[in-house]
Amino acid sequence: MRIIAIMKSIEQRMAAAWRNKYIIRRALSTQILMSPQSLVSLDFPENWTPTPDSLRPPTLNCSGAQDAVTIDGKLIAEDIRSTVATEVKRMKEAIGKVPGLAVILVGQRRDSQTYVRNKIKACEEVGIKSLFHELPEDCPQDAVVSAVSSFSEDPSIHGILVQLPLPQHLDEVKILNALRLEKDVDGFHPMNMGNLAMRGREPLFIPCAPKGCIELLIRSGVEIMGKNAVVIGRSNVVGLPIALLLQRHHATVSVVHVLTDNPEEITSEADIVVAAAGVPNLVRSNWLKPGAVVIDVGTCPVEDPSSEYGYRLVGDVCYEEAVKVASAITPVPGGVGPMTIAMLLTNTLDSAKRAYQFV
Amino acid sequence: MRIIAIMKSIEQRMAAAWRNKYIIRRALSTQILMSPQSLVSLDFPENWTPTPDSLRPPTLNCSGAQDAVTIDGKLIAEDIRSTVATEVKRMKEAIGKVPGLAVILVGQRRDSQTYVRNKIKACEEVGIKSLFHELPEDCPQDAVVSAVSSFSEDPSIHGILVQLPLPQHLDEVKILNALRLEKDVDGFHPMNMGNLAMRGREPLFIPCAPKGCIELLIRSGVEIMGKNAVVIGRSNVVGLPIALLLQRHHATVSVVHVLTDNPEEITSEADIVVAAAGVPNLVRSNWLKPGAVVIDVGTCPVEDPSSEYGYRLVGDVCYEEAVKVASAITPVPGGVGPMTIAMLLTNTLDSAKRAYQFV
Repeated sequence: MRIIAIMKSIEQRMAAAWRNKYIIRRALSTQILMSPQSLVSLDFPENWTPTPDSLRPPTLNCSGAQDAVTIDGKLIAEDIRSTVATEVKRMKEAIGKVPGLAVILVGQRRDSQTYVRNKIKACEEVGIKSLFHELPEDCPQDAVVSAVSSFSEDPSIHGILVQLPLPQHLDEVKILNALRLEKDVDGFHPMNMGNLAMRGREPLFIPCAPKGCIELLIRSGVEIMGKNAVVIGRSNVVGLPIALLLQRHHATVSVVHVLTDNPEEITSEADIVVAAAGVPNLVRSNWLKPGAVVIDVGTCPVEDPSSEYGYRLVGDVCYEEAVKVASAITPVPGGVGPMTIAMLLTNTLDSAKRAYQFV
Repeated sequence: MRIIAIMKSIEQRMAAAWRNKYIIRRALSTQILMSPQSLVSLDFPENWTPTPDSLRPPTLNCSGAQDAVTIDGKLIAEDIRSTVATEVKRMKEAIGKVPGLAVILVGQRRDSQTYVRNKIKACEEVGIKSLFHELPEDCPQDAVVSAVSSFSEDPSIHGILVQLPLPQHLDEVKILNALRLEKDVDGFHPMNMGNLAMRGREPLFIPCAPKGCIELLIRSGVEIMGKNAVVIGRSNVVGLPIALLLQRHHATVSVVHVLTDNPEEITSEADIVVAAAGVPNLVRSNWLKPGAVVIDVGTCPVEDPSSEYGYRLVGDVCYEEAVKVASAITPVPGGVGPMTIAMLLTNTLDSAKRAYQFV
């Protein structure tokens, strides 16, 4: 199945290259290099095919070894939210202002709706003003850009969040480009990403999920510097920024992705594993070195009629197996999820402090 | 020696943290997170200590195995330069314009002087107009920014290159920020770096040395997709962008740096090794998997009175040993160096074509 997936990917890549006239252009005099002129022509969807391993049901390792410590993201996030609330109160009392967050949601994805609802609720609880702007699934590009631009100009708004993914017909790049860098609390602007990547540079915002992962590691007493870290997945919103951030913290980072030949082997050498592939139960016990610290960013919605919202969230890591091998692990839900929201609040607060020069 | 280096690094880091009042701030209410507020506070100089291995003299492996193919960067670069010359001629004949490159050199570093001289000579040979602006070692920040700004406004200049490293008293970040993104032919602007890192995005320019490495791999018939690649070193100018670029080409990338515990072990699992640490002969035969492809970006100037310029360039890889283990390898000089200059020419040409909308 893995080979089929790779073959399929190669086909897609060749098709993309053909569409971009890569091969045709190579024959022309204006094509000087053999490297592709367009990096986007190399991109294709990350269709992870579950390995035969991940299709197996969990077989618990009953060696009698100590279970991993559970890293309680919910508890840590509550602590952070409580301090944010205190800070918002202090700001309001001192200068009569509160931080403001605008949330834009296009379409009716159930999971996106839940995320947005949770973010707005979290804002309310800590005293951050939130404005919710909902647009229909089929709304034109201009309407979204216009909403983003309008919040960009509003001085009472310090953070703007466009809930991703957007419907297919919308151009994510153009929409995010309309977002003022100073209000990019998600940290997804390429300028922020470049500054996150480069030593000696400082991004205005660190993306929320990666920032939450690092905070979980630090608060759990996990040393990052000099450790081997493997990031599974290379999305712009999690895999890429967490790899860059771990590197800024001096881990030795390897990024495993859908085309990696031997992901289990590479991952099983890591002291810290961050799983962000979006594939339920991808990481089994044989992917993990005994004693590894496992951060599970995966939150794949799986149909579950018995749940309040009709689905439940499943992580990338087979928890039942991993807990017997790892030294510490985040659960799903209750791990990285609550931290991501807490980091959104801290980013919005920081942005407001910067705007009002409030220390 | 390795342990001493690590201890020293930790001390430096702690000192930096202390200077940034990281520890003090943690006790205050405004410090919500335990993660450092400033990523720059985590940075310290990359003082690689040669491993005992790299102090050993080369002991040639005489197993009778076939020597590696030498990847002739000089020859490939000449081919590219010749095509650039044809394109510049075509542009001149069609629209009466040629690409223009401005080179700014501050101070009198001998190696920088050589690099700049070579770049200007290469421009002349292909018909690219070059302007050379030299500033004294002790010139004020404003003078450099002013030179950059003036070239940024000049419509006949399509590329601006500030030769790095700059003297200690100058603020590299501020100087490079004055450089128009459309003329950043070195590709060092954080916006370019972010767009290089992010899937679905396109940088205006890919940094020259990394772009040259990929071109060497492709022209040598080396498959990158799905291969394990190790990048040694994480500088903003080479290590970081080559890692990002290899990832865009779908390699599984690990970045080994000065704080990596087991660089030999990780490197010895790579199909493609890019050495960019700047430490002469760091990579010995025991770092390499038999059959690996080795790209040596290291060009460390070593005193040599017998050489024309008083020094010679030495790579990061112990060539005599590596050639017996690798399947292909770039020499120093004559490998990545000439390609870096050739890529500067293609970036400048591309920039001029974009400016004049010449296809």
